[in-house]
Amino acid sequence: MTKLAPHPDRLLPADPGERAIARQLYAEVKDAPIYSPHGHVDAAMLLADQPFPDPAALLITPDHYVTRLLHSAGVPLDQLGLRRDGGEPTVTGRAVWRQLCERWDLFLGTPVRYWFETELSEVFGLTEQPSAANADELYDQLADTLSTDAFRPRALFDRFRIAVLATTDDPADDLAAHLALRDDPTFGGRVIPTFRADRYMNPQEPTWVDKLDALSARADVDASTYGGMLDALRSRRQAFIAAGGTATDTGVIDAGSEPLEPGDAERLHRAGLDGTIDAEGAAAYRRNMLYQLAKMSSEDGLVMQLHPGVIRNHHRPTFDSYGPDTGHDLPAVSLYTVPLTPILRDFGTDPTFRLVLFTVDETAFSREIAPLAGFYPTVYAGAPWWFLDTPAGIRRYRAAITDSAGFTKTSGFIDDTRAFCSIPARHDMSRRVDAGFLAGLVATHQLSEEDAVAVARRLVADIPIQTFRLA
Amino acid sequence: MTKLAPHPDRLLPADPGERAIARQLYAEVKDAPIYSPHGHVDAAMLLADQPFPDPAALLITPDHYVTRLLHSAGVPLDQLGLRRDGGEPTVTGRAVWRQLCERWDLFLGTPVRYWFETELSEVFGLTEQPSAANADELYDQLADTLSTDAFRPRALFDRFRIAVLATTDDPADDLAAHLALRDDPTFGGRVIPTFRADRYMNPQEPTWVDKLDALSARADVDASTYGGMLDALRSRRQAFIAAGGTATDTGVIDAGSEPLEPGDAERLHRAGLDGTIDAEGAAAYRRNMLYQLAKMSSEDGLVMQLHPGVIRNHHRPTFDSYGPDTGHDLPAVSLYTVPLTPILRDFGTDPTFRLVLFTVDETAFSREIAPLAGFYPTVYAGAPWWFLDTPAGIRRYRAAITDSAGFTKTSGFIDDTRAFCSIPARHDMSRRVDAGFLAGLVATHQLSEEDAVAVARRLVADIPIQTFRLA
Amino acid sequence: MTKLAPHPDRLLPADPGERAIARQLYAEVKDAPIYSPHGHVDAAMLLADQPFPDPAALLITPDHYVTRLLHSAGVPLDQLGLRRDGGEPTVTGRAVWRQLCERWDLFLGTPVRYWFETELSEVFGLTEQPSAANADELYDQLADTLSTDAFRPRALFDRFRIAVLATTDDPADDLAAHLALRDDPTFGGRVIPTFRADRYMNPQEPTWVDKLDALSARADVDASTYGGMLDALRSRRQAFIAAGGTATDTGVIDAGSEPLEPGDAERLHRAGLDGTIDAEGAAAYRRNMLYQLAKMSSEDGLVMQLHPGVIRNHHRPTFDSYGPDTGHDLPAVSLYTVPLTPILRDFGTDPTFRLVLFTVDETAFSREIAPLAGFYPTVYAGAPWWFLDTPAGIRRYRAAITDSAGFTKTSGFIDDTRAFCSIPARHDMSRRVDAGFLAGLVATHQLSEEDAVAVARRLVADIPIQTFRLA
Repeated sequence: MTKLAPHPDRLLPADPGERAIARQLYAEVKDAPIYSPHGHVDAAMLLADQPFPDPAALLITPDHYVTRLLHSAGVPLDQLGLRRDGGEPTVTGRAVWRQLCERWDLFLGTPVRYWFETELSEVFGLTEQPSAANADELYDQLADTLSTDAFRPRALFDRFRIAVLATTDDPADDLAAHLALRDDPTFGGRVIPTFRADRYMNPQEPTWVDKLDALSARADVDASTYGGMLDALRSRRQAFIAAGGTATDTGVIDAGSEPLEPGDAERLHRAGLDGTIDAEGAAAYRRNMLYQLAKMSSEDGLVMQLHPGVIRNHHRPTFDSYGPDTGHDLPAVSLYTVPLTPILRDFGTDPTFRLVLFTVDETAFSREIAPLAGFYPTVYAGAPWWFLDTPAGIRRYRAAITDSAGFTKTSGFIDDTRAFCSIPARHDMSRRVDAGFLAGLVATHQLSEEDAVAVARRLVADIPIQTFRLA
Repeated sequence: MTKLAPHPDRLLPADPGERAIARQLYAEVKDAPIYSPHGHVDAAMLLADQPFPDPAALLITPDHYVTRLLHSAGVPLDQLGLRRDGGEPTVTGRAVWRQLCERWDLFLGTPVRYWFETELSEVFGLTEQPSAANADELYDQLADTLSTDAFRPRALFDRFRIAVLATTDDPADDLAAHLALRDDPTFGGRVIPTFRADRYMNPQEPTWVDKLDALSARADVDASTYGGMLDALRSRRQAFIAAGGTATDTGVIDAGSEPLEPGDAERLHRAGLDGTIDAEGAAAYRRNMLYQLAKMSSEDGLVMQLHPGVIRNHHRPTFDSYGPDTGHDLPAVSLYTVPLTPILRDFGTDPTFRLVLFTVDETAFSREIAPLAGFYPTVYAGAPWWFLDTPAGIRRYRAAITDSAGFTKTSGFIDDTRAFCSIPARHDMSRRVDAGFLAGLVATHQLSEEDAVAVARRLVADIPIQTFRLA
Repeated sequence: MTKLAPHPDRLLPADPGERAIARQLYAEVKDAPIYSPHGHVDAAMLLADQPFPDPAALLITPDHYVTRLLHSAGVPLDQLGLRRDGGEPTVTGRAVWRQLCERWDLFLGTPVRYWFETELSEVFGLTEQPSAANADELYDQLADTLSTDAFRPRALFDRFRIAVLATTDDPADDLAAHLALRDDPTFGGRVIPTFRADRYMNPQEPTWVDKLDALSARADVDASTYGGMLDALRSRRQAFIAAGGTATDTGVIDAGSEPLEPGDAERLHRAGLDGTIDAEGAAAYRRNMLYQLAKMSSEDGLVMQLHPGVIRNHHRPTFDSYGPDTGHDLPAVSLYTVPLTPILRDFGTDPTFRLVLFTVDETAFSREIAPLAGFYPTVYAGAPWWFLDTPAGIRRYRAAITDSAGFTKTSGFIDDTRAFCSIPARHDMSRRVDAGFLAGLVATHQLSEEDAVAVARRLVADIPIQTFRLA
């Protein structure tokens, strides 16, 4: 057996002088509360507060960071617990867990391994590295742990010191879980919704018409016309605000934002309902919608998050068998400066408007995002996203962004996760890497130690609070 | 109050072994004269040699590196002394200075803060970091200093040890200041013009016709035809050479360089005069002009600098109120290898021709610029430009360029600044970062210490002198 | 004279703690056999086993890494021994060698200098750095050395501990040298062919028709129809397999892979024969061919290597005088995720299929190649290629690739060289840099020392063996 014992200095710089500084900086923020202004945890899970299911269903099957790398090594997704063709899982949680343990070496050097080790050790108290030999034993140990009250969602929420947890929600969602949590005197946490209207932006998507119906019903506003849909969305944004929401999110293939004349938009909307819209029309509709969402943010002050440039469901056979979010969403070349011209022309200096830009194409850090955030008071540089949300990725982000945008115009760390139990490990990673980055500036006399302490503290509190209007 | 005392080892590597080597290398070049072959200082300022205006008008208002970041934090540009709608400034210099001091933390970790600290300390002798508390006191101290003879432009020019200072000038400029400086027996400096014909390349620009008239008048050659304009430009290049010029510069949105038949160019020129040229025609005209400028360089030996890929005046409302160069010029994706094919086909191995390539898109370093400079004897890799002109940017540039182009085919440091008093701080930054880069090669036994010393010295003298034909 | 004595710790990290770890890791792999699954050495050279020609003809003239940088400093290619207009070389080997020695400083800090120093010292036993002063003396010393039996190709093959050497070969090649080597009881090495069908993919290339004839003759299958050509290629792939081949390679300007209906492909094929095909048709033909080659790999299990994104023969006058491969092939922007969609849709999870992706555009590492390799079991991230095959390039590759794809889904080091005597220096460079990268992970507690040792060993053995199916 190999010991599982994450080192107290992990991720801090190797140079002893820098490490000493980084240690001090990290100590300042290590135990600070977690602000998680963007993620994919389910509010209903916290409301119900039931024990988590088996270890594999908690830690492996729903986490496409984990399943994609196992799949890349030849493990079919159904062997990892994914449901094929809508059927029941064909393997036990124990068998899924074994797949991971047998291929634990596959993750060497990756951030997934890093998160997993921290989580297994610090959250679940394991003391051995997973391996083929101890797979069953560890599985039993985890299953036992998960059955205890201390490992129910709310207990973990408190233990993780989560100050704010934002979820991601459809405009047609009733937000019942958020409201119930808010009104529950036994729950002290703050769980807030994020308005994500992606499903209403593409009239060619098969679900578009059904979503409009659902939206009409929820908003009690007829969304079958373009104007009606905008009204319904505006109405739901107010409901999100009432439920504590401070932000929206949008995922689009590109950041194009050219507005349409209302008549043209209405005509495309009808063509969408008729099923006669073509790809070009759908793209124009989507780009106008991005503009309209920005306009709404300039009116109601919801912070607009933008996550462009992901090619969804790249492997058609996997999508056909397993559905979306199964590990083959892939990065595209991503531009910001030119496509966002209309939004920034009209709302770029509007004090109510705010836009946080994320990317999976790191060439945009120094070429587009930092220069935009370094001029427009409304634009913020979002933390490294998805494939870039790693120790090395965060270092490249800081090196590229700080030059043109400093620290203040950044978002603070974003865990963006469905994996609730990985939240502390992810934020801890970010705090360590930022401590190391700041230590490098101190060691090379670009920043004083006092200033570095101040920045480190701001990065985990003031900055996310102010950027996401959480105060 | 917080002490302002830039550390003698700042920007040198953190590792003690590397730092010891870097210190030695830096000592070799620390006090070397400054070659500044590209920048935006006004020659007339040196001719007049009047005391500088108030501190804000010297250090803040004209420096869009500084104003853009303050603007990004919500300070309107008129509060920074910029003239709105052509009117008078509405704030005092003291009030502008206070805006900076109150937000001094905004610049933490940025190269602007680094330059500013060095400049305030080493040029102006301040000993406290700016803050809201000491803003007035520092302002008075700076204002007093600026009123002394030791701080008039020529005294600073000598104190900064500037060997050559190149300005940037329109072909229609009379170069009177350059000629007067050259002929002034009391001024020992070398201030040379750079020929920048950007205003003549785009027939859709509102100023194009007026510029042609001005060019005709200055050159005493009728520039109202295409052929006449080329003749006028050629004539002015000779005037620039007579005034000491060794280089040209061109800023274009892309590096396209497809030549036109003279008849086609003449026809587009006429369409420009008629106001009937369309965007496609204007682009063809511009690309042909880039080719013609390269051809002229192949004839007269002026070193051609190319600065492509900047989207000018991104925020239309700011442009409408404040005009150009107000902080919202932004980088575009920039290509070189394909668009420069015609120029390099015809002049790529011509010993008279020389082309220095700059970029604001760092992906071009390893993909385009270094491979071109590593084959074509005429092509040089320009120093990191604008948003990339930072300690971290220079390190990435050296790491990416050296592999395919070595040190010899680079330009030497370019300060590219309007901020005269920041020149020594900027060159000093570059010398420190290069010392650190070379120290890294020495410490990992990729370069001997003797060779590193030789390279460090060449980078600040032989290389700019040879690349820009300053000998 | 300056001593030539490569340092035993060269390329290992500067930080003493990291270096100590890296030294241990490097010691584990330093003397491991070399797997070279992709390169351009000539099998006939090993078969003939004649002494190498003069030092310049061995070390300079055929190596475009060396000649391109000398050319960039103004040395015409004919002065480096290249044949102008098909004529005889106009300079002696001694004169060529002198060109290099006189400009030895040009290579400071470059990987070419690094390889050269290692090779001159460790292979040829030189003890002085080349210089104008000692050029003749070193030339004589090298010439003497090359005339000894110990420096004939097979002796060096053994001394270099080459376990497998893959060459690159046209489908119409008879593979006689490979077969003779395989059957030669006096030669213990393994020299295997790689199937590279580039010449058959572009009907607009002047040689296309002749190549079809040659293919028909070699395969004894009529390749004058599209269907026939596919049959002939399939047949030759079997011959390559019979000669020990395990892989193919393809170099294309882009990775487009849209299949055509057989009738459409046949029609384009005929248009190619008629000389009536246009650029669009030729591109469609090429993209279909890429798909067909992938399909063949899914049938016969030859590992498909893909090297896209090189602009060939950029400087037309040099090509006209000196032909191809003369230093002005240059990188293009390179995409993978979208253009490879058809191949990955149809063969992406096929256990027989395998695709190793290389790039000269490093932006693809984190944006395209690692995410693809981290999902598709068939996709592997190829080692840094060409302009990126350098210490700094390898570090950036590992940092960008490991996050999303770990170590297992990489190719192992690829020397890709025509310069036989540089093979050990190149592999040694890679082993040192990987040892340093792993040491960095160990020093920052992201990897245990035991795991790092295991990974280091795998990178030089199991990984190339498994990826290229060499077992």
